[in-house]
Amino acid sequence: MNSYKILVTNDDGVHSPGLRILYNAVRDLGRVYVVAPETPKSASGLGITLHKPLRLERYKLWEDVEVFTTNGTPSDIVYLALNEIASDFDLAVSGVNIGDNTSIQVILSSGTVGAAAQAALVGVRSVAFSAAVNEPDQLAGDYAERIQKASRLIAEWVLRKGLPEGVDILNVNYPPPDKWSGSVEVAPPARLRYLQRVTINYDPRGRRYYWLYGKSIEPQEGTDVYSLFVKGAITLTPLSLNLTPEGSVYKRAVEGLLSLVDTIRARVS
Amino acid sequence: MNSYKILVTNDDGVHSPGLRILYNAVRDLGRVYVVAPETPKSASGLGITLHKPLRLERYKLWEDVEVFTTNGTPSDIVYLALNEIASDFDLAVSGVNIGDNTSIQVILSSGTVGAAAQAALVGVRSVAFSAAVNEPDQLAGDYAERIQKASRLIAEWVLRKGLPEGVDILNVNYPPPDKWSGSVEVAPPARLRYLQRVTINYDPRGRRYYWLYGKSIEPQEGTDVYSLFVKGAITLTPLSLNLTPEGSVYKRAVEGLLSLVDTIRARVS
Repeated sequence: MNSYKILVTNDDGVHSPGLRILYNAVRDLGRVYVVAPETPKSASGLGITLHKPLRLERYKLWEDVEVFTTNGTPSDIVYLALNEIASDFDLAVSGVNIGDNTSIQVILSSGTVGAAAQAALVGVRSVAFSAAVNEPDQLAGDYAERIQKASRLIAEWVLRKGLPEGVDILNVNYPPPDKWSGSVEVAPPARLRYLQRVTINYDPRGRRYYWLYGKSIEPQEGTDVYSLFVKGAITLTPLSLNLTPEGSVYKRAVEGLLSLVDTIRARVS
Repeated sequence: MNSYKILVTNDDGVHSPGLRILYNAVRDLGRVYVVAPETPKSASGLGITLHKPLRLERYKLWEDVEVFTTNGTPSDIVYLALNEIASDFDLAVSGVNIGDNTSIQVILSSGTVGAAAQAALVGVRSVAFSAAVNEPDQLAGDYAERIQKASRLIAEWVLRKGLPEGVDILNVNYPPPDKWSGSVEVAPPARLRYLQRVTINYDPRGRRYYWLYGKSIEPQEGTDVYSLFVKGAITLTPLSLNLTPEGSVYKRAVEGLLSLVDTIRARVS
């Protein structure tokens, strides 16, 4: 068992209690490497840093645990870890994020899932963990213990069995503490979670600024959002990064594009 | 024709010649709104800015063209534009990016495709355009003219016919100028384009820093990378943002996860 190499990362930064919970969940499953952003990098998606240097610092942050921090994004962390720490991770776990990562809209902008996605692309099995809370302080007590226990079971299962065929990432969301029902469900992602809106305000010099925020959309039955918030279930969502429409849809799309292909061919030499 | 509302954006920033080419390509297809990052935001993926204020400035940047700039990401731009400029865009075009956006790995980290993806998620038809060059200066002369002409044909076609069913984004890549063969192909994305590597160097104070870079992987036949670089074709890639594995694969994945569901149910209350 102790030969497994496990990368633990997140996007909320090294001081998030979610990182500690995830470390505790997997600490005795193998050799664990914790690498996290030095400051929060929420909503950084799969963004990587190509145009500036990255730092990698080594700390003893918790009692006896060695932690690496970086100024890079969660995606950068995967590549830094694979190049500078160990090239043969058996598992990458990311989180536990403060805030759910449900719906395609949120998943694709999520740094938590972003790190898992980068790991998956280079062949490392990966799981993203998120909890539907607003504040770090909520990740405490009984709720944190249940999350740690479930995360451990999931990590252990994936280490032993691998992810099902065709699945790149297992995206795990924990329900809000006051809605926790004890059930566990597998559900596909909704498309949208928020209507994105903008508030306008004025700085002390009278110049206008904008701030983005999301207005929740009513959850649709059969989606991860519904399973998490309406049914209060621990929600497991198998994700594929294959961006190609499925078989027959792709075929029809190619046929549909033929008239465009012909037009360009005829008019651009 | 002139009733169409078109959003033009990019991730290389307002000073990129690619933005100007794309504006010129669509300028007489409708009412065109140019909104771009004030500085380059390459590789920002679908990242959005939730934790700081955004600015939106209005300039007359080119002769007579009104341009908005922002400190936000390409994804932010889509939401700013939809909330503050016009809520009913018929088309969002992003690019022309300096550098190709081929392979799932690069596509998911791309700010150019990121903007197109955010637009697609909220129901705006979108096309991402990229050119396989290393430097802005290469987007000039004959090459730029051909790109402008082809981009115009593509935008016009999508405005008239829409994207094929099941397609969220049309991802367009133009081949390197010295490989341009005149052919046009539809191809799905490769999985990987680069082996991500890290160089190590030392700053003037002797502190170590890291810099990420990609080592190209040999292109596989039948992929966007092969079509673009080996065949020199204008490469059209229909993308789906549906992150769920297709039909039977998803079914088997759900069955495969049942033992995990049962384990968590039994052991976490």
